[in-house]
Amino acid sequence: MAADLDTRISETADLVERALDDMLPAREGPLGRVVDAMRHGALNGGKRLRPFLTIAAADIFSAPRDRSVRVGAALEMIHCYSLIHDDLPAMDDADLRRGRPSVHKAFDDATAILAGDALLTDAFLVLSDPATHPDAEVRCRLVRDLAEASGKAGMVGGQMIDIYAEQKTLDIAGIEELQRLKTGALIRCATTSGGVVGGADEADIAALQAYAEDLGLAFQIVDDLLDAFGSAEDLGKPVGQDADMDKATFVKLLGAEGARSKALELVSSAKERLSRFGERAAPLAGAADFVFERKN
Amino acid sequence: MAADLDTRISETADLVERALDDMLPAREGPLGRVVDAMRHGALNGGKRLRPFLTIAAADIFSAPRDRSVRVGAALEMIHCYSLIHDDLPAMDDADLRRGRPSVHKAFDDATAILAGDALLTDAFLVLSDPATHPDAEVRCRLVRDLAEASGKAGMVGGQMIDIYAEQKTLDIAGIEELQRLKTGALIRCATTSGGVVGGADEADIAALQAYAEDLGLAFQIVDDLLDAFGSAEDLGKPVGQDADMDKATFVKLLGAEGARSKALELVSSAKERLSRFGERAAPLAGAADFVFERKN
Repeated sequence: MAADLDTRISETADLVERALDDMLPAREGPLGRVVDAMRHGALNGGKRLRPFLTIAAADIFSAPRDRSVRVGAALEMIHCYSLIHDDLPAMDDADLRRGRPSVHKAFDDATAILAGDALLTDAFLVLSDPATHPDAEVRCRLVRDLAEASGKAGMVGGQMIDIYAEQKTLDIAGIEELQRLKTGALIRCATTSGGVVGGADEADIAALQAYAEDLGLAFQIVDDLLDAFGSAEDLGKPVGQDADMDKATFVKLLGAEGARSKALELVSSAKERLSRFGERAAPLAGAADFVFERKN
Repeated sequence: MAADLDTRISETADLVERALDDMLPAREGPLGRVVDAMRHGALNGGKRLRPFLTIAAADIFSAPRDRSVRVGAALEMIHCYSLIHDDLPAMDDADLRRGRPSVHKAFDDATAILAGDALLTDAFLVLSDPATHPDAEVRCRLVRDLAEASGKAGMVGGQMIDIYAEQKTLDIAGIEELQRLKTGALIRCATTSGGVVGGADEADIAALQAYAEDLGLAFQIVDDLLDAFGSAEDLGKPVGQDADMDKATFVKLLGAEGARSKALELVSSAKERLSRFGERAAPLAGAADFVFERKN
């Protein structure tokens, strides 16, 4: 299974990379500069976890792959725009992203702001395009779910809490709320959108959502563990940043073993949520194991 | 007519202000901070030209006002997000906007980036909501048109040209292309989206588009004239900035009289495009006069 999963993850990542490459054709002149910056931020050989979840969830309902890949690529555009803006000097001021210069280092701040804006906008262009699904009700639902997950009451709101909350004083409930917005909302939307594009009924979508909520929180706990104990080489960015900033993290509040066992519990709970789908959900169950075992 | 138009413009602006106020309810805590910044950038007593065009175009087809106001508000969210990001130190570095501190001055750069991102995202949330139109095909068309008009091949692309093109060497065709993207695309989309939400056929939408293209260019030429000859008090921002930067503008290339007569020609042409709609298009014709006569 593990080898199968690795193959599947890399196959999905290739599909998404190709789709993004097609959606962002290079151009000449100043327009070319913003597209180059979008490509730098989006075509980066990432793991493509969110599109993996979209495509794996859509596969349960035998959705045509060309549709689910488009939806996954739109989710990834949102993820990549958020990284471009988060890396800006005014935000996290990060020079490196996956071992390469971040967009504002490779270009400049103005170009990074605009490239992020354009990727965010393109995500909705992709979802509203009839090539994504022939039924406009389905396309509208995808647009709406993504706008909710990524806006002020989702990812952007989570980033605001991350920057402005009195982090040292956050308790476990506070961190869980922060992560539910900052990373959880998009992971949840990626998964349920796979169901939506596959024509799942509401009960199936609710099960996918419950899975994704457990998975999203496990993902963040593992992120904290990697920041505390991972290697900078594996991560492609400096480690120990949370402790340096005296941030409240799952590791700080629960200890390393407590955080590990909470993540393991969540992974196990996530997999149980998939029982109604039987063997068809094996890739999603594998993704939960992957999230726990990942090194970066 | 002129007094009627003034009344209508201010009534429409009030409708849009109220709609935006409802769509952006204040919140507590760090989430409240991003909403406060969105409100600062969006609830600013602007002229609301774009929503005026949307609502006036939709009125031709007797669209329910609650629908056209929502579409106009979404267009205005995009316009306001673009101003928030353009004002950032990394872009135009403007401290004032309509006589008030710009969002990054009233808050900070990180908050301004995120508030812009959230307004951009909310525009698509509003358009994809069934309250905007019961037919999902119509909502999807609105989403798609707006994403095209505001993204890399529209407003964002125009901003890139504005920042990075060798402006001193731009000729009239070059400036027209820049403005077609930077301000024209959104003015065009605002107008045609009124037709779309009103159920206009493609021939009517084409006529609205032709009107809006003339109007958008006239709007920009008048902007150049105001920058060269307007008063800072009327504008709420410094004047003479284009000449200080030795930017190629319509005024510089055509002279003041040449620019004025080109704007007047475009306004007249814009009004002719409306002939198929008869008296129902009087507010759009009035908007063309307003664009020419405005003082800020």
